Amino acid sequence: MTALDTVTTEHAAWLPAEALAPIGALRVLVLGSELRADTVRADALAATTRWGGQLLDDLALGADVVLALAADLAGGTEAHHPAVAAALATGRDPLGPEGFAVARVDGVTAVVAGGGSGLLYGWFHLVRTPTALRGSNAPAERHEPAHALRMLDHWDNVSVHPVMGQVERGYAGASLFFCDGKVRGDLSRVARYARLLAAAGVNRVSINNVNVGPDAARLLTADLDDVRRLADVFRPWGIRLHLSVTFAAPISLGGLPTADPLMPEVAQWWATATAAVYAAISDFGGYVVKADSEGQPGPFAYGRNHADGANLLARALAPFGGIVHWRAFVYNHRQDWRDRSTDRARAAFDHFAPLNGQFDENVVLQVKYGPIDFQPREPVSPVIAAMSATRLAVEFQVTQEYTGQQRHVCYLAPLWSEVLGFRPWGQTGSTVSEAADGGVVAVSNVGDDAFWTGHPLAQANLYAFGRLAWAPSSSPTALLDEWIGLTLPQASAGVRRALHSLMDGSWRTYESYTAPLGVGFMVSSTRHHYGPGVDSYEYTPWGTYHFADRDGVGVDRTRATGTGFAGQYPQPWRDVYESLETCPDELVLFFHHVPYGHVLNSGSTVIQHIYDTHFAGVERTDEMLREWAELEGGVPGDLFARVAELLVEQDRSAREWRDQINTYFFRKSGVPDAQGRRIF
Amino acid sequence: MTALDTVTTEHAAWLPAEALAPIGALRVLVLGSELRADTVRADALAATTRWGGQLLDDLALGADVVLALAADLAGGTEAHHPAVAAALATGRDPLGPEGFAVARVDGVTAVVAGGGSGLLYGWFHLVRTPTALRGSNAPAERHEPAHALRMLDHWDNVSVHPVMGQVERGYAGASLFFCDGKVRGDLSRVARYARLLAAAGVNRVSINNVNVGPDAARLLTADLDDVRRLADVFRPWGIRLHLSVTFAAPISLGGLPTADPLMPEVAQWWATATAAVYAAISDFGGYVVKADSEGQPGPFAYGRNHADGANLLARALAPFGGIVHWRAFVYNHRQDWRDRSTDRARAAFDHFAPLNGQFDENVVLQVKYGPIDFQPREPVSPVIAAMSATRLAVEFQVTQEYTGQQRHVCYLAPLWSEVLGFRPWGQTGSTVSEAADGGVVAVSNVGDDAFWTGHPLAQANLYAFGRLAWAPSSSPTALLDEWIGLTLPQASAGVRRALHSLMDGSWRTYESYTAPLGVGFMVSSTRHHYGPGVDSYEYTPWGTYHFADRDGVGVDRTRATGTGFAGQYPQPWRDVYESLETCPDELVLFFHHVPYGHVLNSGSTVIQHIYDTHFAGVERTDEMLREWAELEGGVPGDLFARVAELLVEQDRSAREWRDQINTYFFRKSGVPDAQGRRIF
Repeated sequence: MTALDTVTTEHAAWLPAEALAPIGALRVLVLGSELRADTVRADALAATTRWGGQLLDDLALGADVVLALAADLAGGTEAHHPAVAAALATGRDPLGPEGFAVARVDGVTAVVAGGGSGLLYGWFHLVRTPTALRGSNAPAERHEPAHALRMLDHWDNVSVHPVMGQVERGYAGASLFFCDGKVRGDLSRVARYARLLAAAGVNRVSINNVNVGPDAARLLTADLDDVRRLADVFRPWGIRLHLSVTFAAPISLGGLPTADPLMPEVAQWWATATAAVYAAISDFGGYVVKADSEGQPGPFAYGRNHADGANLLARALAPFGGIVHWRAFVYNHRQDWRDRSTDRARAAFDHFAPLNGQFDENVVLQVKYGPIDFQPREPVSPVIAAMSATRLAVEFQVTQEYTGQQRHVCYLAPLWSEVLGFRPWGQTGSTVSEAADGGVVAVSNVGDDAFWTGHPLAQANLYAFGRLAWAPSSSPTALLDEWIGLTLPQASAGVRRALHSLMDGSWRTYESYTAPLGVGFMVSSTRHHYGPGVDSYEYTPWGTYHFADRDGVGVDRTRATGTGFAGQYPQPWRDVYESLETCPDELVLFFHHVPYGHVLNSGSTVIQHIYDTHFAGVERTDEMLREWAELEGGVPGDLFARVAELLVEQDRSAREWRDQINTYFFRKSGVPDAQGRRIF
Repeated sequence: MTALDTVTTEHAAWLPAEALAPIGALRVLVLGSELRADTVRADALAATTRWGGQLLDDLALGADVVLALAADLAGGTEAHHPAVAAALATGRDPLGPEGFAVARVDGVTAVVAGGGSGLLYGWFHLVRTPTALRGSNAPAERHEPAHALRMLDHWDNVSVHPVMGQVERGYAGASLFFCDGKVRGDLSRVARYARLLAAAGVNRVSINNVNVGPDAARLLTADLDDVRRLADVFRPWGIRLHLSVTFAAPISLGGLPTADPLMPEVAQWWATATAAVYAAISDFGGYVVKADSEGQPGPFAYGRNHADGANLLARALAPFGGIVHWRAFVYNHRQDWRDRSTDRARAAFDHFAPLNGQFDENVVLQVKYGPIDFQPREPVSPVIAAMSATRLAVEFQVTQEYTGQQRHVCYLAPLWSEVLGFRPWGQTGSTVSEAADGGVVAVSNVGDDAFWTGHPLAQANLYAFGRLAWAPSSSPTALLDEWIGLTLPQASAGVRRALHSLMDGSWRTYESYTAPLGVGFMVSSTRHHYGPGVDSYEYTPWGTYHFADRDGVGVDRTRATGTGFAGQYPQPWRDVYESLETCPDELVLFFHHVPYGHVLNSGSTVIQHIYDTHFAGVERTDEMLREWAELEGGVPGDLFARVAELLVEQDRSAREWRDQINTYFFRKSGVPDAQGRRIF
């Protein structure tokens, strides 16, 4: 991608100077002696200096905006400005440490926060809500995050991996954190990254790849001082640092003959190592572990189970308040494609459901949202409903591994919103978000690219992830507008509408021209999951098959005649998915093997649906190209050029998807397109 | 392949000490003051010292074996021993520089050679023909090579390529010639390699990859002294050294603004560079060029044709007797798979046939034996018949890129023998071998592996190539026995027979379990052409498609309804291939798209043929495993172990081929196996 090299000035993402113009023009008072209060004060000083406002140090000077910590406001509300008093008076419960209340009375906007992080989030709330800064009185509003853990996992390698590059599944250049096999010396860009994350609501960052190489393993011990430098950069922005560790560390780093989780010397090694980490980083977040998965070491080598493994690390972390994120992505990646009884979709449930209740309190089981692997369309993982007595986090993928690799526009918040709002126990039960008491996690999409995310519009995914993690019921559409407004504050309303229109349905567009009806994984293995390869995984050990033949396509995962995967769901879903009549169209090939002539609930046959969606997908990318062309001059030139170049690639790639999928199914089915369009 | 690491002692290949025991036990006289006569004398000294014979320096001492140069035997035959006289008297024409005659009279065997190389070949003739050293009188036999140019091309990179490794398409370790970005310091192994090649009859070696990287380009100029060291090692064994060069050298090495073949300064640059090469290496062979092919630079960039390009280099080489090998492997590797009118098979003919007669005398057009790319089964390239007024060499691939990558036993001499004996103009016309007045070339299969070739049995391919290049009408079966006899002189007759049986039909076996009926290229792109990938190339830009759909499979290359490729052949083949009735079964899918139910000349349908051959192929590899197991103790232990491990992999891989191909075609065709065997 030549465009990646043409922009050298770092893009401001959703915090351009102009986004702070409204608040920067006012008189701002930030009260509180606390690290993050200092952060807000510094940010406010920069904004007011730039935009003609003033940073005050005393309420008596007549502030327009007051931000304060609830704990500092001792002695009742009558001593304070009415706006502060109003904000302070919200709700019976005290504000949480990240919570804040905002009120506007008599021309003054007040934010009262439950802690330093709350002050930070209140500050950015005002930045993105300039209406809160003007006009008549507004009743107090209270804001608390739905999830206490809102985490980004970086799959950054310390050294460049010969195949995967530096950032595994990264499409935006090299790591922000590591260079030449160690933590970067200059971390100023990491500080700006931390500010962006804080403005989106993220409060945890794991800095290294879950596939832990030898260089990365040493972050836990020899290179700990470098990790401390990174933690010091994140801390002022309310972000705690986590490390991915290898389960074999007691052997590879500690020189022990075993990493058996039930051996006392192994537990002792982890206790000692963890104490050293906390001696260096007192607010260290904890460990992320990919164990017994795709070749990574784990407890199975010692005949132990995943609870044994996770609890080992949890007990080392518990004295310090740390957490272990234990990934549930465990399956047999050496499956025999001939064996149609084994079903990779079943694997996580089969491994973990029997362990429900056996995990310590500070273990968070980290579950990918779907049972396979971050496909554009999957059912929600049944593991989420199965782990009622286990803390659980849902894992998303902001980096677009299977969704266009940041060469395609694919705004993913609608997908995440659907998952978070899904009710695994039916309409009267909890949502996924409510079940995820261990928080929400996503794999980051940033790198040292000038636009942070390669594709400039992929910034919206990073932003929306943080915002959804904070407030899962947010409308993805509203978040998109929020991102557009912050990122392009000088764009006209027409440009904003056009950009919204281009991005809003882009996930559905991507779905339309790629693997149909939830069948998944028709991606090229040669090109690392970019572009079509209908049979690329069909005869491999990876467990991702579509079983297309001359009569039909799809995976029979029913209890009656298939792998039984549908039975891993509670009611009503176990029956909804089981039945071809009630299974949602978009998942029909995930759960059923059907003839090409099967009539969907939409009224279309499967084969005609494939043709129609694939033709429509390319028609849409053609339109997107035209729509973008009209924005020339309406958005900054470097951003325009980068997106324009990438849309050409998206359109080309979508056409390749369309033609390969349509040709593949036409050759197999022999059914002509009802509209007589060209299939090769 | 773990076995590659377990053998550390270099294997002697077809020249173990024991192979020289018969001649080493005799009194040997080598006459002649000449570099290669010295080589023979040194080899004879080593053999006689080891085996109790004697190296004489005077005929009067009573030699059993005499080797002499014809030119040294002045003054008529009466002065010589009757055996020498008999050898000297063969034929009217003088012996060629590589020719020799051998006779046996009164207990003395005499070799008279036309030149130093002939002496060398006569010596190795006696080594592999111990019957010539004993018994009664034998009439004089005259031996001359059928091809003056018998060449091995090494695709060795000077530096390790990040994807291709050091030896492109190499399966036997690193380069024998290069290490750490330059020519090795210790060339003693190269000398032993040269001896092996001389014993097989090879007389030209191109040392570097036809894809010329920057390091390799410098061999022509800055690193010339290192090339000279290599030439010095090959020369005593009658082998001239060639270099692959990049057409862009005048730019990249010479700093010129152009490499346009018609610009005088470009011609001057090549003339000067070439003169410098010959100043260092007086018997330098010439240049090998891959131009305008798969991304390599060439004359097209300047609007010139391949004759312009080849003649440019030819004129630089001509004053010194050098040759340019210009490869005809030119095609569009950015084809659109949707475009069924473009046919890669046509490309070489379309590019080169119009240039017939326009190449200088010292240009050799180097043509792959088939129109695609070294597949296990292709028709003979029509370019061979099209270039009557151009010197032409046929190119084979000893390295097993598409024939099992030296993990599968695949004795290729029967394939090469078929090609060399093919008559492009019909039964009354010349053979391919006769048409190849520029010689025979093959890509080498050696590396620094202890067995030279990875798979020990792949040595037979290297040996047989050299022998076929010398005597193309040799029986591949006889050559196999020759190789077995030399390589395993201590094996029992039963072991030799068993090994012969294992290897003799192995090319047909490989063909049986891979792509059927000449359709080719159902190989995995992910694993660099190893193992099955039926659709791996189907939707790529590489021009290698099979067009399988639910009704049939194959490429219509007829004049009547297809790409017209069949029309590139002269009669009778243009009609033989055009007609579905006369087209040989083994090429039917190369030339025709046929329904699965089409009945072959064999009486089987296409689909049943696919099933039958694939089941039979695995039955045969199962047998090979059992046959080899019985040889334990009958062959050296290290060789036994290496082959045993590789046969397990071959059997596994053959089973994977069988199941993927059968499943693929069963899913497409819906036709069950007539014998009801298991298809997944």
